[in-house]
Amino acid sequence: MNTLGHIFRLITFGESHGMAIGSVIDGCPSKLKLDFDFIETELNKRKTAQSTMASQRKEPDRIEWLSGLFDGVTLGTPIAFMVRNEDANEADYEALKDVYRPSHADFTYEQKYGLRDWRGGGRASARTTLPIVVAGAIAKQILTEKDIQIDAQVTEMGDAEQAQKEGDTVGGIVECRIVGAPAGLGEPMFGKFSAELAHAMFSLPAVKGFEIGDGFALARMKGSEANDTFINKNGRITTLTNHSGGIQGGISNGNDIVFRVAFKPIPSVSRPQQTVNQAGETCEIVIQGRHDVCALPRAVVLVEALAALVTVDMIFLQNLKQNH
Amino acid sequence: MNTLGHIFRLITFGESHGMAIGSVIDGCPSKLKLDFDFIETELNKRKTAQSTMASQRKEPDRIEWLSGLFDGVTLGTPIAFMVRNEDANEADYEALKDVYRPSHADFTYEQKYGLRDWRGGGRASARTTLPIVVAGAIAKQILTEKDIQIDAQVTEMGDAEQAQKEGDTVGGIVECRIVGAPAGLGEPMFGKFSAELAHAMFSLPAVKGFEIGDGFALARMKGSEANDTFINKNGRITTLTNHSGGIQGGISNGNDIVFRVAFKPIPSVSRPQQTVNQAGETCEIVIQGRHDVCALPRAVVLVEALAALVTVDMIFLQNLKQNH
Amino acid sequence: MNTLGHIFRLITFGESHGMAIGSVIDGCPSKLKLDFDFIETELNKRKTAQSTMASQRKEPDRIEWLSGLFDGVTLGTPIAFMVRNEDANEADYEALKDVYRPSHADFTYEQKYGLRDWRGGGRASARTTLPIVVAGAIAKQILTEKDIQIDAQVTEMGDAEQAQKEGDTVGGIVECRIVGAPAGLGEPMFGKFSAELAHAMFSLPAVKGFEIGDGFALARMKGSEANDTFINKNGRITTLTNHSGGIQGGISNGNDIVFRVAFKPIPSVSRPQQTVNQAGETCEIVIQGRHDVCALPRAVVLVEALAALVTVDMIFLQNLKQNH
Amino acid sequence: MNTLGHIFRLITFGESHGMAIGSVIDGCPSKLKLDFDFIETELNKRKTAQSTMASQRKEPDRIEWLSGLFDGVTLGTPIAFMVRNEDANEADYEALKDVYRPSHADFTYEQKYGLRDWRGGGRASARTTLPIVVAGAIAKQILTEKDIQIDAQVTEMGDAEQAQKEGDTVGGIVECRIVGAPAGLGEPMFGKFSAELAHAMFSLPAVKGFEIGDGFALARMKGSEANDTFINKNGRITTLTNHSGGIQGGISNGNDIVFRVAFKPIPSVSRPQQTVNQAGETCEIVIQGRHDVCALPRAVVLVEALAALVTVDMIFLQNLKQNH
Repeated sequence: MNTLGHIFRLITFGESHGMAIGSVIDGCPSKLKLDFDFIETELNKRKTAQSTMASQRKEPDRIEWLSGLFDGVTLGTPIAFMVRNEDANEADYEALKDVYRPSHADFTYEQKYGLRDWRGGGRASARTTLPIVVAGAIAKQILTEKDIQIDAQVTEMGDAEQAQKEGDTVGGIVECRIVGAPAGLGEPMFGKFSAELAHAMFSLPAVKGFEIGDGFALARMKGSEANDTFINKNGRITTLTNHSGGIQGGISNGNDIVFRVAFKPIPSVSRPQQTVNQAGETCEIVIQGRHDVCALPRAVVLVEALAALVTVDMIFLQNLKQNH
Repeated sequence: MNTLGHIFRLITFGESHGMAIGSVIDGCPSKLKLDFDFIETELNKRKTAQSTMASQRKEPDRIEWLSGLFDGVTLGTPIAFMVRNEDANEADYEALKDVYRPSHADFTYEQKYGLRDWRGGGRASARTTLPIVVAGAIAKQILTEKDIQIDAQVTEMGDAEQAQKEGDTVGGIVECRIVGAPAGLGEPMFGKFSAELAHAMFSLPAVKGFEIGDGFALARMKGSEANDTFINKNGRITTLTNHSGGIQGGISNGNDIVFRVAFKPIPSVSRPQQTVNQAGETCEIVIQGRHDVCALPRAVVLVEALAALVTVDMIFLQNLKQNH
Repeated sequence: MNTLGHIFRLITFGESHGMAIGSVIDGCPSKLKLDFDFIETELNKRKTAQSTMASQRKEPDRIEWLSGLFDGVTLGTPIAFMVRNEDANEADYEALKDVYRPSHADFTYEQKYGLRDWRGGGRASARTTLPIVVAGAIAKQILTEKDIQIDAQVTEMGDAEQAQKEGDTVGGIVECRIVGAPAGLGEPMFGKFSAELAHAMFSLPAVKGFEIGDGFALARMKGSEANDTFINKNGRITTLTNHSGGIQGGISNGNDIVFRVAFKPIPSVSRPQQTVNQAGETCEIVIQGRHDVCALPRAVVLVEALAALVTVDMIFLQNLKQNH
Repeated sequence: MNTLGHIFRLITFGESHGMAIGSVIDGCPSKLKLDFDFIETELNKRKTAQSTMASQRKEPDRIEWLSGLFDGVTLGTPIAFMVRNEDANEADYEALKDVYRPSHADFTYEQKYGLRDWRGGGRASARTTLPIVVAGAIAKQILTEKDIQIDAQVTEMGDAEQAQKEGDTVGGIVECRIVGAPAGLGEPMFGKFSAELAHAMFSLPAVKGFEIGDGFALARMKGSEANDTFINKNGRITTLTNHSGGIQGGISNGNDIVFRVAFKPIPSVSRPQQTVNQAGETCEIVIQGRHDVCALPRAVVLVEALAALVTVDMIFLQNLKQNH
């Protein structure tokens, strides 16, 4: 249940202020020469403190590769890596250990497990998404060899500079496009490509909506408007329009796969907020610490990473579908 | 990959015009006395031909229980059941066997498998969702014993009567509410309750969007507007508002779980449409056969069924989370 | 937990005297033209009443194919099939419904589930292995196309004719050989080829031992005797001896894979036996009904079927191991 | 495929001479206060260099806990830990990088992955079993709270002292007993307790045989000799004899679970051996380096650890089997 994927599989571990965060990738093919520079570049996209709107935590984020590689080449065995939490300052959170921050996971984790690591959000911290970027970079490398590109961008975002002044936060929408994926990817019933993408995106903190193609707007169209006419374009069958976002019956049709992910605003506003504590008493809190005003700039690489992981997994599954 | 769930698991089988459709449920606890009348009632909600806007296919939909029961009580072993396809008229589809209906799965299935059962959409037919209703009814029965209710309704739908006159179809939105689920359900990283719901809903034909709580609208709020204040209500901790839709950090907080599912219009419009055939030649088709104008009325029970299946699975997983 | 395999997956269902037994195969590639005559031939090998030493139950064992096929060719979607239980005579078992037959699964099932289908052993009946033969025949067909043969035989068996006179039963040993499997099959840690074979064989009723290559005898050898010297045989690397049974480090080395399975005697002896009933009272029982004296002749095809299923699964997994 | 277990799950990673070996445990309940002294004690049982018959590699084997703990108490989130490989001397293996050591996994890994880490056996090294001991110690702690004990011992072993003089190695048999496990554990079809144990044991290097209860000897008994008579012993139903080894129909009957595991001799004999190299040329090798004469003393704790892991997993699965 902490694992993503079926063939190319990823398990992640780590709490925000624990010793380390990391991952084990199982099912990566052998003989892939990892591009460490590229992984580093991807990781930097996620790093905090890039701008005024991002959190102040300063982590070197140095990856230690623990297994699965020999001279930088994948062995086919599990690839484990970790990043130490070096700038973890638990004093920031001591005051909050008994209270439930609004719209954070403090309360739900405590209900689930009967205890929680209250330092920095513990397992629910956005920091725990770091291993996804690393694994996603490896997946992207596999896709690049197959001429498949993944490209996401922020298409909608609240006014971050204004919100910062007001001690507030904003959300937004990330749109992602998978270009070059062959037709035939995705399983027909409970492993549809669209379902796997939705599942993966909802694994990110703060995600509250997902739509593919024209998404919710399709609910307001007529069939004659929504249908994508098949055409023969230079000998290749494709569609004239792409309301479907590249997915029909849960399976890719060879057109661009396009989807959007809605992120709620980060719940750590710096204004005073009312809440209750473990004893059930009403209290007021002011969240100190290092927090982003908006997660969107950092979310772009995460959306891409998860899209890459899902796409690789769908490709590997598809390789086994026809008898030869 | 044709399986839903982790502990309470469902595999479905069957093509629209094959011999039968059905399912095997694995992981249903023993000693549950099935309420066959309730299952029948649920199944009738899905049946076609209830109204002018629904398809004309007339199936008795009689369930044959094949295993896992003794005197109507679950044995704990796999529960298999099937429903025969008795009104399957393949002549309706003969004319379409070589052409790709727009926004249907004909083309993608053929790309995936190298062949397809062209009769009535084969495995991609909406008929293949029937077993989900049966399994969902069993899941609902388990939830009812735990005082958990699931209630969905159509909250938005195109003008079906008008569309029918125009040989067109419409889509819409189903909203679903899970009431009474305890706090603590859902796994923290890749098995979030929200992610599992999204995955399940995207397994339905024609689903193109999913949002939880205020969903996409949250992307346009500020943190101070979006946050749900915790309150102590008669000794029980809950939230004043429910923008989160009952899910925080992917885990239920005890409040109502609320989500919406966007369905595109059914692609089988009766107007003439342009498309291409297997040979890549442009052609015009007119889809005959028996088709709904709108899938929404039937989709309600499907959304509920999948929500029930996911909720039961999350409860069973949660039972193992704390050491005693 | 009622599923075998990772890519080529099999779930079975059914109780001895329920309505039907059957299976869903998920992950069979498309475009395989099933050889129904071969499946029938395999099924006949398993059938009872072939000889004086086998049970008297007479089932036509007619397979009904429910899904996943179109004109006898696999679609890539789940293949469901079933066989009805037509000669199920529950009166034979009425007298035994409250007592625990020695070394049967009556007691353990009741402990596990709190109830059981007491008719003919319910889910624990040897009849429930029938679907394995059908699925195994499909797997064998896939292997034959790859020039891999599977061949099992009884290498040791008690004196059945004598046992029958004495109202007793006998066990024995089946040896199986997989010929032509390429080197490189099997996962290195928890999915070793040997481990998967052991797991599959222990899924058969009455199996109490499994060994590969020289097996238990290896425990008494010295390393210098047990080691298999690598040689170059006409340009192909192989081993001079095969003490390892074709498996080294859990992975196939291209040599014949050889293993042995020990079956205990069938516990349904016809002599009077002492036992206890549900109330905990000591009682004497005489098992009537239709029972084999020895399961071994029927077990041969089961061992082969499971070996075929595991081998296909290992091959499919291996197809994804090297980056290209 | 590098994962053991269904609910209490273990993935391991690491090569003998890579940076580290370790594991992620997913599904361990929260609120368990780990007994680090006990884990240390278990780990010492496995350590090399305890006697003249064991290998000379000297590793401090210090566990670094990376995640899933807070003040030594489990959080319910994935528990990651690792042990660095500090005494890894790859020069020992340089001479062997192009040759296939007889009955080692050099050849099979290379066939599987197209390359291998030739230093110390890479992923196939016995060193990679270290994480199993750590995870097993945690599982044992859970079992101890439930009054379940696991106890293994060497019951048969070659003459190690003599073999050492001759530059040879020996194998042997480990017998293990699980005492106090409740009746009802194990899944009926493809997840039998016996099958899960067999699978786990075959995951250990050098294992070539597994039998439960009287095992292979049962193949030579008559039913009347092999059957275990049920008796009422002070109000509790048990069996008079235990030929079945505590498992009937794949499910525990409450009696001691007894099984035996056959280990072949370690293939690293120090005598000169003939083999072939990558180029297919015949050559003679002398295996230097640090090697045990017999793996049995170290295997005892491994057998116990795996038995503990499987038992915990079976208990967790069983908790969900009856409707309440």
